[in-house]
This record gives sequence, C-alpha cells and structure tokens, in this order.
Amino acid sequence: MKYCDLILDNATIVTLDQDDRILTQHALIINENKIIDIIESTQAQKSYQAKEVYNLKNKILLPGFINMHTHIPMSYFKGLADDLPLQTWLEDYIWPNEAKHISKDFVYHASVHGIAELIKNGVTQFNDMYFIPEQTAKACIDTGIRANIGDIGLDFPMGDFHQPKSSFEQINILKEKFKDQQTLTFTLAPHAIYTCCKETLKKCRDIAQKENALIHIHLSETAFEVEQCIKEHNLKPIEYLNKIGLLCDRLTIAHGVHVDEKEMELLKKHNVSVCINTESNLKLASGFAPIKKYLEYEINLCIGTDSVASNNNLSIFDEMSLTAKLHKALNQDPTILPASDVLKMATLNAARALGAEDKFGSIEIGKIADLITLDTASIEAQPYYNPYSLIVYTLNTSAVSNVIIDGKFVLKEKQFLTINESKIIVNAKEYKLEV
Amino acid sequence: MKYCDLILDNATIVTLDQDDRILTQHALIINENKIIDIIESTQAQKSYQAKEVYNLKNKILLPGFINMHTHIPMSYFKGLADDLPLQTWLEDYIWPNEAKHISKDFVYHASVHGIAELIKNGVTQFNDMYFIPEQTAKACIDTGIRANIGDIGLDFPMGDFHQPKSSFEQINILKEKFKDQQTLTFTLAPHAIYTCCKETLKKCRDIAQKENALIHIHLSETAFEVEQCIKEHNLKPIEYLNKIGLLCDRLTIAHGVHVDEKEMELLKKHNVSVCINTESNLKLASGFAPIKKYLEYEINLCIGTDSVASNNNLSIFDEMSLTAKLHKALNQDPTILPASDVLKMATLNAARALGAEDKFGSIEIGKIADLITLDTASIEAQPYYNPYSLIVYTLNTSAVSNVIIDGKFVLKEKQFLTINESKIIVNAKEYKLEV
Repeated sequence: MKYCDLILDNATIVTLDQDDRILTQHALIINENKIIDIIESTQAQKSYQAKEVYNLKNKILLPGFINMHTHIPMSYFKGLADDLPLQTWLEDYIWPNEAKHISKDFVYHASVHGIAELIKNGVTQFNDMYFIPEQTAKACIDTGIRANIGDIGLDFPMGDFHQPKSSFEQINILKEKFKDQQTLTFTLAPHAIYTCCKETLKKCRDIAQKENALIHIHLSETAFEVEQCIKEHNLKPIEYLNKIGLLCDRLTIAHGVHVDEKEMELLKKHNVSVCINTESNLKLASGFAPIKKYLEYEINLCIGTDSVASNNNLSIFDEMSLTAKLHKALNQDPTILPASDVLKMATLNAARALGAEDKFGSIEIGKIADLITLDTASIEAQPYYNPYSLIVYTLNTSAVSNVIIDGKFVLKEKQFLTINESKIIVNAKEYKLEV
Repeated sequence: MKYCDLILDNATIVTLDQDDRILTQHALIINENKIIDIIESTQAQKSYQAKEVYNLKNKILLPGFINMHTHIPMSYFKGLADDLPLQTWLEDYIWPNEAKHISKDFVYHASVHGIAELIKNGVTQFNDMYFIPEQTAKACIDTGIRANIGDIGLDFPMGDFHQPKSSFEQINILKEKFKDQQTLTFTLAPHAIYTCCKETLKKCRDIAQKENALIHIHLSETAFEVEQCIKEHNLKPIEYLNKIGLLCDRLTIAHGVHVDEKEMELLKKHNVSVCINTESNLKLASGFAPIKKYLEYEINLCIGTDSVASNNNLSIFDEMSLTAKLHKALNQDPTILPASDVLKMATLNAARALGAEDKFGSIEIGKIADLITLDTASIEAQPYYNPYSLIVYTLNTSAVSNVIIDGKFVLKEKQFLTINESKIIVNAKEYKLEV
C-alpha cells in the first residue's frame, strides 16, 4: 500500500497522451503536485491510501486549458467600446483609459477578476502581457493559478506606471522577487513591431537569450501592420523579426493573421509557435488566420482569448468551437480541424509553446496535476457519443465543475476555494470607468 | 388600484421598442398572458395589486429569443457524427438512423429534451420541422413552450412514420387536434428543393394559400444544391421557388448561404424572411450567408441554431456572438452588425418572419409576455457598460435565470417548473443510439 495526496476516482479520462487514450472507470493518483499513477478504479483504493478520494462519476477529466494570449488586468475594460477598428479602439478608447485609470490596485483587483473568469472557464495556466506585472503575479499567488507573465514593452510612456524601454529589465527583478513561486514564469513581452522600435526589439532579443526567457509578442494582427512594416523595413513582419534575430522556439506570436508561406517557412525553421485568437480577430475585423496553411507547415498552434476588451469573454470553449467550425467553412472542407485537434491546441500545443510539454498539456504519469472536470450529467451534455465532440462543439463554461492547479483544488463543485466571488463583483462595480 | 397577475419589478428593461429604449428601475405589469403596463418601479405597487411581485434587481429583462430553425426531436442525435460534409452526414448517418430509430416515443422524449435545452438558452418560441409533429406538439404543451411546428415534407418514405407527399395534409389534422392551444401554430415544411419535387412544392403552395399558413424550407444551403437546381431547372433556387409561386411574406428560408443579388431582389419583393444558421453552416462547411448584402436589400433576417446534430448545441448566445463577429471580419468592417442589430435578429425580426410582430419580439404594452431575464450579478457580467454588448458578446446560456412564456414562469431562478430534469437525463441515456 502506497500513500498519496489525492485519488480522482471513477473518471472518464481524456488523456491527450500520444495514443490519444480515453480511459473509462479509471483513477488518477496525485501526490504533491504530480500525477504519479493512472490505474483502473477497481485497483485504486487497493493500491493507494489517499488523504482525499474524490469521485468523478458523470464527469470527464482532462488537462486544464492553457490560454496563450491574455491581458488579464483589462477586466474592467470589458465591453467599454465595441464594433470599432483596432487602431481607433486602441488609440481612442483603450490607451487613453489605461493612461488615466491604471494603478497598482486597479491591476491587482482586475487581475483577480480576470483570473476568476479564467478558472470558471477551466483555464489552469495563462500567458499574459500587461503593465505592473508584479500585481498580476500577486493575484496569481493569491488565487492559485499558474501563469507566464510579461511586462508589456512599449516605446512610449503610459501614466506614471510605464516608462519606455524599461520593461525588459523587469524580468530579473520579477524573477528574484517571486523566485519561490513554482507556478509563476516571467516572460518578455514586446507589445508589437509598431510600438517597439528595432533597438527595443534587439534589446529584448539579448535579454531573452541571456535569461533563456519566453517571448510573447502581437504580430501580423492586421493587414495595416504588415503594410507599415513593408513600407518601413522592406520586410514582412516575420522576416523583420528574423533579421533582428528574435525568431526562436521560445517565441509565441499572438494573432499571426496575415502571414505568407515564405514567413511560415521561417516560423517552422525556428520552431516559433502561433497563438490563434479567433474571436478577437473577427470582432476587430482583423481577418482569418491561415490555419490550414500553418498545419501544412506543421507549425505549432495554440489558442488565446485575447482580452475581454476585444472578445468580450474568456471562454476557451467558444474559441475552440468557433475556430474548429470557421476553418471548415473557410476551406470548404468539414473534415479539417476535427474536435480532437482543436482540443490539443488549447492544451498540449500550448504546453509545447511554453517549452513545458514534459509538465503540462496531457494526463500522463510524471506530469503536473493541472486538471479540470466537465459535468456530463446535464441536459445539454446528454446523450454523448464522443468526448472530443462533446467538449469542443457542445459544452460551454457552465460544464466546468472542478479545477485543480498544481495538485490543489481551486474550484470544487463550482465553488471557488481561493476567491471571494461577491467581493470581486463589488470591486468591479467600484472600478467601473465613468464613460 | 388595478389588479394584475404579475409585477416584474426593479428591472433593467431592454425593450427593443421602436425607440430602442433601455429602462432602468422600471416595472413590467403582466395580466393573463399580456404586458399591460410599463411604469417606474416607484409607481408599480401604488398603481397595481398583483398576485405575484417578482424582484428583478441585478437582472436584465428582455424579450425571449425566437429560434427560427430547429429540428428539436433530433436531440438524441447530438454529436452522433461530426466533421463530415452535408450530403455524407445526411445520407450515411442521419437518414439511416432516423429511419431505424424514430418512433412516437422517441419524438416525444427527444422533443422534451430539446425544449429543455431551448428554455435553458432563453428561447421562448421556436420554428421546427420534423416527423411525427403531433408528438412535438404534445411536448410543447407539457413544457409550456411556444412553437411553430411543421411536418417535414420529403418525397421518399422514412421508416413507418413518414409517407411521401402526405405531410402537407397533416396541417389540417394538427390544427383541428390542437385548436385550443394558443401557444401552437402549425406550418408547412417542405424539406428542400432536392428532396421535394415540383409537384410537391406546388401542392405546398396551394395548401399554404388556402390555410394562410407559414412555410419553412431549407434553401440554398450548399453550393452543390444551387448547381443541381441550375442543372435541373435552369434557375437558381429562389428563382425556382418564384416560378412555382412559393415566395410570399409567410415564407422563411433557412440558411440562404448561396444567394445572389438577383435572388435577393425577389426575396425583397415578396417579403420573404431569411433565417441565418451560422454555426451549422460553418460546421458543415456550407459557407457564409451574404448578410451584408441582405442588409443592403433590407431583407428581414432572423437566427436559428439548426439541430444539435449539426451545431451541436442550441445556444442563441453563441449564434448571436459568432454571427456579429464573423461578418465584421468577412467584410473587413468592425462596424457592421452591431450588437443591438444582432439581438433584434433573435427577437423582433423573428416575430416579423412569423407574421406576429404585433405579439412578440419586443417589450411593449399589448404584446404577449414571452420574456427572459439575464443575471448581471456575476463575475463574467461585471462590469458592464452597455447591455447590448453584454448580451451579445459576453454572456452565455448560464446567465439565463428566468423564462416566462405566455405570462407564466417555465424557468424560475434556474429551476424548471414544467420539466423534470433528472428524468430527461435518464431518458437520454436510454434512447442513446448504439453506434
């Protein structure tokens, strides 16, 4: 008889392992923050003595979603301005309001708010870029979520909280300050090629190399951005980054809507990952990412929601469903992007983009226990024939019943264990902008 | 002091009336099944004595959604086959399973299941076509939902429950049988031009004229259908229906994906409505309805989910959000289809398509009380700046807290009053097909 912290028993497990196994009547054995065994339910309590046994009857257990492009502290800008083009939306609404309203407290509380939404949506880890990142880091610690956090790099000042070109040095301060937090990683996050000059990007490259840091940048989001890049540098955005030396396997480009095949060759050569943000791209009329082509070039694709200011929610279910369906119609081929492939974009491929495929993204012995459960004992979930189809095409956020991060429950039977929901709602009403 | 049945007090009311008024701190006064007054909350209980006063603090009150294209008894086919083209999906999966499994009991129980999903999604009325329609009608009566029901017309037999060309005569039998049910309307529902011959469609036309009946048909869903129509009749589908004499203001065509401007002129001339089914069209790779062009031709557009077999859910929220966002990107214009217009597609425009704009689709004195409430005291709903944006871009099914149909609660504080939820789940598991 061996000891363990937690047995998740009687589960239907969507493993996403290399054989794509779906196990029924199985138990997941967790000790500390790791999956130490996966065995038949009949054997679980004969083999392991656990501090807690949790029954997952009528639930699907799967790896937690990884939201690969967020600006979590923008929670209070949700629905502030809609039905506008990207540049107007940024320049007339978002940036002026950020300059005016952002503060340490704002970022902390808005982060907690956004994290609560992420957890309700089954997200166990996110990849964020925003100002005052130490406040987002504190919110992550207080709520228990895993995050990759970058101080946003912009060549112009914002309020009293952002000075140009100082962003990248933050990474050392943040790494030192939060060195005991295994659930936090700090990244470099140059905003975009139209807001960071060549010198800034070169500095980012140097620090990234030195620190072996992940890099997260908005790239090729709009046709206008691409045109400007060609005009200014006589290169397409990915060629421009290549020239600077920023392309590497630690880089994730968010959006990648307007990318040609020559650029895809560069992305593949350097193992760059692309984060697809379908809802945001549609809502801002930025366009359609060339997913079919990316798949032909075997480029690693993951999924992000972008911020609630341009989405306007943090639902990975919506992104998966929409992305899967949209690209069938765009390519006049209903067989592309089957449900199982899209689910991997939101889990395993994201882990790969973070250089952490050995730790996250599938349910396998030795991986970290970042897990969610989805209820199947509901009218909308019944009957079901295929769990991938159910997850991607049928269910939504309301199916998420449990969220386990780093081996600990943060949502249990739809109740937050680390978050005071009513306090968040009160705070949101207080921080709501006067418009 | 006047008497009434129900006061819905302290509401934020999205009226969708001709001035698009949004009223705060107002009360809706309901007697029997009608809205008899809309007044400030401070005056409500001074002016009216009600059997029930229900407080809508932290809730938005709006007209119930009208789902204009459904096959509700297909509930048990949800997720049966995915990622396939329309013809393969229909011919190899759906039709053979329908022929084998459909029965009176199947249709009744699957209808109750689908209706439960509709109600959870805030739908107060739907426009259905399927086999054994009296069983769907019974399910509507038992659950309290409002429906327009058509016996599906197909030129080939299905199992022992459908004989070719007998469908349209059903309307008289159904009208007589359910003549006391004010919440039920019976329609003519020829499946499509590729499954009903010219003679069948002419018969439909004649009965529709005689009975002044609504007509509901799948049309111009795929490019293949249009090609076949040209090949066979030397006409595009809408020209073909025009020649037969089927175009009229009582006709709603479901899909309308492949329609040219000449056809739009015909649709406009005859006041035909088009029901957009975005998710189903994407998932089956049928294409993108030309919504911007339809709007230029001032064609009345409404929204449907299609069946759970091709969607795979009944969320009007998903359809609204996706439709609004998708057509911004398709037209490279984020200003088209603003949230308020899309909300009208799911309510007022649908009422217009049903020839019942005087009864449904907005909150106005004299209209029937088909209403829903959405919770705003949730993390995902806060903060909010604009109710249209909140409803269309942010919220989903889980925000629906109350559903009132014909003046009566059918969902109250998220609990069904007319439906046994656990029994539905048991039935779904029993009726699940062996595949």
